[in-house]
Amino acid sequence: MPQRDTANAPMPVFQPSGVITLTTDFGHKGPFVGVMKGRIYARFPAARIVDLSHEILAHWPAEAGFWLARSFEYFASGTVHVAVVDPGVGTPRSLIAVAVRDQLMLAPDNGLLAPVVTRDPEARIRRIDLGGLAALTLPRPSATFHGRDIFAPLAAELAIGRIQPEDLGPLLPVQSIVPAWVEEAQGDGHAVSGVVITVDHFGNLITNIDATHISRMSAPRVYAGNHSWSLSRTYGDLRPGEYLALVNSFGVVEIARAEQSAEEGLGLSRGAPVIVRDTARVP
Amino acid sequence: MPQRDTANAPMPVFQPSGVITLTTDFGHKGPFVGVMKGRIYARFPAARIVDLSHEILAHWPAEAGFWLARSFEYFASGTVHVAVVDPGVGTPRSLIAVAVRDQLMLAPDNGLLAPVVTRDPEARIRRIDLGGLAALTLPRPSATFHGRDIFAPLAAELAIGRIQPEDLGPLLPVQSIVPAWVEEAQGDGHAVSGVVITVDHFGNLITNIDATHISRMSAPRVYAGNHSWSLSRTYGDLRPGEYLALVNSFGVVEIARAEQSAEEGLGLSRGAPVIVRDTARVP
Amino acid sequence: MPQRDTANAPMPVFQPSGVITLTTDFGHKGPFVGVMKGRIYARFPAARIVDLSHEILAHWPAEAGFWLARSFEYFASGTVHVAVVDPGVGTPRSLIAVAVRDQLMLAPDNGLLAPVVTRDPEARIRRIDLGGLAALTLPRPSATFHGRDIFAPLAAELAIGRIQPEDLGPLLPVQSIVPAWVEEAQGDGHAVSGVVITVDHFGNLITNIDATHISRMSAPRVYAGNHSWSLSRTYGDLRPGEYLALVNSFGVVEIARAEQSAEEGLGLSRGAPVIVRDTARVP
Repeated sequence: MPQRDTANAPMPVFQPSGVITLTTDFGHKGPFVGVMKGRIYARFPAARIVDLSHEILAHWPAEAGFWLARSFEYFASGTVHVAVVDPGVGTPRSLIAVAVRDQLMLAPDNGLLAPVVTRDPEARIRRIDLGGLAALTLPRPSATFHGRDIFAPLAAELAIGRIQPEDLGPLLPVQSIVPAWVEEAQGDGHAVSGVVITVDHFGNLITNIDATHISRMSAPRVYAGNHSWSLSRTYGDLRPGEYLALVNSFGVVEIARAEQSAEEGLGLSRGAPVIVRDTARVP
Repeated sequence: MPQRDTANAPMPVFQPSGVITLTTDFGHKGPFVGVMKGRIYARFPAARIVDLSHEILAHWPAEAGFWLARSFEYFASGTVHVAVVDPGVGTPRSLIAVAVRDQLMLAPDNGLLAPVVTRDPEARIRRIDLGGLAALTLPRPSATFHGRDIFAPLAAELAIGRIQPEDLGPLLPVQSIVPAWVEEAQGDGHAVSGVVITVDHFGNLITNIDATHISRMSAPRVYAGNHSWSLSRTYGDLRPGEYLALVNSFGVVEIARAEQSAEEGLGLSRGAPVIVRDTARVP
Repeated sequence: MPQRDTANAPMPVFQPSGVITLTTDFGHKGPFVGVMKGRIYARFPAARIVDLSHEILAHWPAEAGFWLARSFEYFASGTVHVAVVDPGVGTPRSLIAVAVRDQLMLAPDNGLLAPVVTRDPEARIRRIDLGGLAALTLPRPSATFHGRDIFAPLAAELAIGRIQPEDLGPLLPVQSIVPAWVEEAQGDGHAVSGVVITVDHFGNLITNIDATHISRMSAPRVYAGNHSWSLSRTYGDLRPGEYLALVNSFGVVEIARAEQSAEEGLGLSRGAPVIVRDTARVP
């Protein structure tokens, strides 16, 4: 990583990859995501657009931020990520851009990007100032769809390289953005507590407890509801129907049920508290 | 807009953008949309394909036409739109193409494109005559999947510029196509009546009453079920759980519930009558 | 078709089209499909990626294989298909590649690709040997997401032409791969028996009985539950609500209900036995 936080170092140039990802709670009914893509292609015909997910729980920025913080590393340098979970659209909330490891994220300032910023002290935050972007001739935005009217054209202009992140607006200190909706998992070497933050299509209960939180435990045990498990390696190590806990492919603790839904079987879902304890240290 | 309806004006050349949109009621199970894309890329490898929606209410062309009529303006000139909601596939129904403001739409002649044609008197309609397109060596179509067998290859050939709209077949007068399934909203300066025509992922009830219908009312009030509302500007202006009505980002009247589902809360859905009255004019 | 099975014929060169399809049971929640695309674009920026379906019934490779075997012909020569329905991920199951008619499919060796191999005696199977692919610098794979960590980068390298199918690993005889989860339909000229193998978004019951199985019957009749039907040509030949059977656009027998769901109406779904008899031959 280059030293970016030195005040008089030259500003790094953002070299776009041409890839734009979209993360929303719009679902698949109606043309909402499609018209965002129409607006992107109109400004950047060679864009490659990836749907990260459009089934974020409605009005819950925390889930979008959780996934974005743990997914962006699988994209090339220079990728522009747009996340729109925006119950405050049209009210005086700000829009922000976060530059992190040669990638760029755009979202409303409602806590969505807080998990990204929290995890990377080198992340640089800017408040998007549309007043300084008049040259882009953005449309007059509607009161209810800034994904189409603001974020899509800005992402296109950034991804084609006509503007740079520093054109978006002034740098913001991390303390001035809206904090995360869900606290990061907390603990020490003996125990760490977090929550189920999302549930996937299989009904796997995915927590915000990172592997780094438990890496020094000798015998970690995962507690949720009135159950507990030691860590397994993969689903297929158990028989169908059996429950398990593991560190999943995004590096967080997950509670699963082999070939079935842990969410349905355990009756747990988003928000359920989960604790990992080092059982080698408790009597 | 150029004068296109002058009989001896030169036919405008369709300059494709390379973008093709798809709107269907196929859902996301099975490879139905995927094989359409396979057929498009086989003829036009550089196509950019946008899914407008595949969750149109099954067998209801009215919803597809409503969205297409209000979405196409967000795409570049030269975009080709394919809409397949086609309960009559394989019966003797016609296929039509509608050229509107430098864009082109292909669909079965079952009322789907009527909302587009109704809203733009300069729209030009053609009946697709496969007999005149033998040079394209289309496959012999199946009886049940013209999206894959006819629309996808035609869209590809139009979007790559190998054929022009006028190659598709003869011009049709507007009266000769199948009319819309749902009447346009009707009224005068005092009151306008329409219906809920679609419901989005959030449960917002979206009507076919355009902002132009109510633009001269001094105090418009929206009536649905046994409720009524004046117009709000955006969702966040109310507290979560409160109902509201607004002109949404596609320029139509919408009934919503802040951070919740108006559909579930009010028990209203597609087809529910909605009236907007100018309360400054009634006693 | 070139003669590929002659032992000393030169190995055909795979000429990639640049198109990659994805078929999974991941659904649309979370970034699982999106990060696969991120990994593909990072290695092959000009890839064109098609989602075949991500709503395969969870943990049921048979449905993915059924669709892949009947969909690939709609894609250009040189297309790479990735199918990940993989309850055994991270256990010692193998990964395989199947070359069939100038296209290439990658999947876990769990029966998923057996329907493809069964239908084409010229299909060539290889066991993927990651040891021989060190030059690709694949990431160390997670225990639970080989779609992202192995299949996506391999598909990208094949589709951009940096590796050839023969670089993937040794040829396998057909008998050595895991057989299909569902038997092919079986019968003779008088009767053939199969099952409902998938249900589409409309509730159409789609069987594994190919048209070729019944092509010599003079009066085929389809039996399922305690109902039976002769063959119709298309949905619109019946009145809404009436049931019918037909040979669908993928060449298999399907039981449908005009403009409604046969699955809901008949109470039948995946696995339900279906028989077609030639009623001209029974008394």
